[in-house]
Amino acid sequence: MTVVCSSSAAEALPIVRLKPKANARALRRGFPWVYANELVTDRRTKALAPGTPAVLQDDARRPLGLVGVNPRSKIIARMLDTRPTAVLDQIWFEVRLARALALRAQLFDKPYYRLVHAEADGLPGVIIDRFGDLCVIQPNAAWAERLLDPLTAALQSVTGVQTVLKNASGRTRGLEGLDDQSGGLAGEMPDGPLPVPMNGATYMADVTGGQKTGLFFDQRPNHAFAGGLARGARVLDVFSHVGGFSLAALAAGAERALAVDASQTALDLAQAGAAAMQAEGRFATRQGDAFDVLTALGAEGAQFDLVICDPPAFAPSRPALDAGLRAYERIARLAAPLVAENGILGLCSCSHAADLTAFRGACVRGIGRVGRRATLIHTGFAGPDHPQLPQLAESGYLKSLFFRV
Amino acid sequence: MTVVCSSSAAEALPIVRLKPKANARALRRGFPWVYANELVTDRRTKALAPGTPAVLQDDARRPLGLVGVNPRSKIIARMLDTRPTAVLDQIWFEVRLARALALRAQLFDKPYYRLVHAEADGLPGVIIDRFGDLCVIQPNAAWAERLLDPLTAALQSVTGVQTVLKNASGRTRGLEGLDDQSGGLAGEMPDGPLPVPMNGATYMADVTGGQKTGLFFDQRPNHAFAGGLARGARVLDVFSHVGGFSLAALAAGAERALAVDASQTALDLAQAGAAAMQAEGRFATRQGDAFDVLTALGAEGAQFDLVICDPPAFAPSRPALDAGLRAYERIARLAAPLVAENGILGLCSCSHAADLTAFRGACVRGIGRVGRRATLIHTGFAGPDHPQLPQLAESGYLKSLFFRV
Repeated sequence: MTVVCSSSAAEALPIVRLKPKANARALRRGFPWVYANELVTDRRTKALAPGTPAVLQDDARRPLGLVGVNPRSKIIARMLDTRPTAVLDQIWFEVRLARALALRAQLFDKPYYRLVHAEADGLPGVIIDRFGDLCVIQPNAAWAERLLDPLTAALQSVTGVQTVLKNASGRTRGLEGLDDQSGGLAGEMPDGPLPVPMNGATYMADVTGGQKTGLFFDQRPNHAFAGGLARGARVLDVFSHVGGFSLAALAAGAERALAVDASQTALDLAQAGAAAMQAEGRFATRQGDAFDVLTALGAEGAQFDLVICDPPAFAPSRPALDAGLRAYERIARLAAPLVAENGILGLCSCSHAADLTAFRGACVRGIGRVGRRATLIHTGFAGPDHPQLPQLAESGYLKSLFFRV
Repeated sequence: MTVVCSSSAAEALPIVRLKPKANARALRRGFPWVYANELVTDRRTKALAPGTPAVLQDDARRPLGLVGVNPRSKIIARMLDTRPTAVLDQIWFEVRLARALALRAQLFDKPYYRLVHAEADGLPGVIIDRFGDLCVIQPNAAWAERLLDPLTAALQSVTGVQTVLKNASGRTRGLEGLDDQSGGLAGEMPDGPLPVPMNGATYMADVTGGQKTGLFFDQRPNHAFAGGLARGARVLDVFSHVGGFSLAALAAGAERALAVDASQTALDLAQAGAAAMQAEGRFATRQGDAFDVLTALGAEGAQFDLVICDPPAFAPSRPALDAGLRAYERIARLAAPLVAENGILGLCSCSHAADLTAFRGACVRGIGRVGRRATLIHTGFAGPDHPQLPQLAESGYLKSLFFRV
């Protein structure tokens, strides 16, 4: 891949222009996106290769900044820099990465975190997770796909990591017209799962074959909250993936933990994490569909002091909202009877479309259906290594509610 | 005060009845309040002494539970027990207090916390804060004012505390027709401020003369979050009260902290806390109106790495909302220029009327007014010793937003 040299001279950049109805004011105030219906899409603009840098002008031809254009995407332009003459070279990436790194270094004492959270870190559509000496990039926007070389070089220079992987499994890459070919960008590939320290637990992250970048850092503060309630507790972790809540609970002194997931691969990683913590004697797994396992546990009369359900996004989009909320309600209905009296039920949603009020309502209905009363003791969101632009914060996807039932 | 004996025989209790239009279904599902316009208020009901226990029936005369009636209050009845034959004696309080205590004992390793958070802990309108061997009760509903004797006895028996104080400064007591006479209920009065350990800091709580119960436990997790960003930082704590954020920051290794408050008494307590932590060399205070001090600091060109503003409720009620949001915006506008580049600005609201979206909007507008861009790294609420009924959670009063600016 060659670095896009056209961006080195602003006068050579193509120009794209807002329609009069577009919200130029919002863009000036930091809103990062231009939707396809807001841009003049003449033949020239339509012909731009996905990810081409361009100067964005308002309808009066005043420059608004430098954007990455993707005529195939509903988000047709993403604001990359408010300076229209900015040059998207390695130094440009280094400045942004250094700023992102400074926050994480302040927040965490070990280099395991989401280093770049897209728009809020000034790199629209780009996710970078760091696992010690290795980083995984998700270039989920075409402009970043084109500039992977300077991005990778900048990443190595700013963080000092050797190995950089590309993960192309992101759902939004399809919307950008990008392929799903993951692979190595720099350094040596790891030859197995990486141990990741978090909240006193050890997680095993499969950064080459796993979901997304191999581990979800976003639940870190909610794992910690659950850990604070776990001492001596019997814990059930449903949709456990590699053991997010259960291993944190074991690290915090849980009596025992049962992890449930549909993926045996994920459960094997969870088991390996428990072994790395010398906690395998207190840890068990059960592979299967979560709804089925919850039903079976109910039939067995199983009881736990702390039950957490962290399902995949049941309502990823607005059309899926109603069905998604019913699924969340069903999870709550199946999980609540498994909670011992005065125990804790943690229910999570990573659905953009289900806002906090709707999700909380679904949970309370589900709990109420089985005759339990609940008080809400904690509402948590994604951790601070997942910053948000306030303009996009309404859709803050991750919600973790802890009820006492 | 005599214990209300009439509640020992359910048949002797007065009966109050819902109007047909009232939402009996919500009450059956756990909604805790009956509004004055939902109850049949005949002469007999109007004549009930404030706080009288009564059996609540729906419009078809089916019993819904035992309520405390207050004909003077807009919340004319508060659900105390879904069993209409419940007896409101010391044992009744003990069961509720033991359940509340169990959660706090699970959450905290030292006995300093909100022990009872009103409706969500089954004691409508009752706040109890615990400071080691001492508790402060805020009986903010008439039914509880009548039953302070068995409540106090139960509190001593369940927690083992010796000293119980009554704080009658709560704003809502007036709405219930209650006086503002604080005083001792049991045990010896403390002869000075009490040291309170929290997040590694030491706070001095004046439980007899202070605001509310002398210390705000609700910000504990947000103090901790700020502490996590405080190492080596220059910290400004505006509306500091007894040093909530500044002492937590000093405990977490802040280089120095400046606390600003209108109350010299509060600042003296903050100074005493800093001295108890051997941190007085890194701590300074500035007495004055927060808006004036923020303006003055701006004129001086002062810069801090971490600025937190935790003002009193600017929008305590719906009519005050617009003016309140303007005040929050003004705080953000005055505070943002004091934050060094890539520093953190924490903005808090304890206004019921300003919901999260409205408050966040005011903050972002204020920050934007002075040309700063912000990303949102954390949204925090009150700590888990402040549980909420999900039915009332929409009004979750405390919001703490942390921006990187």
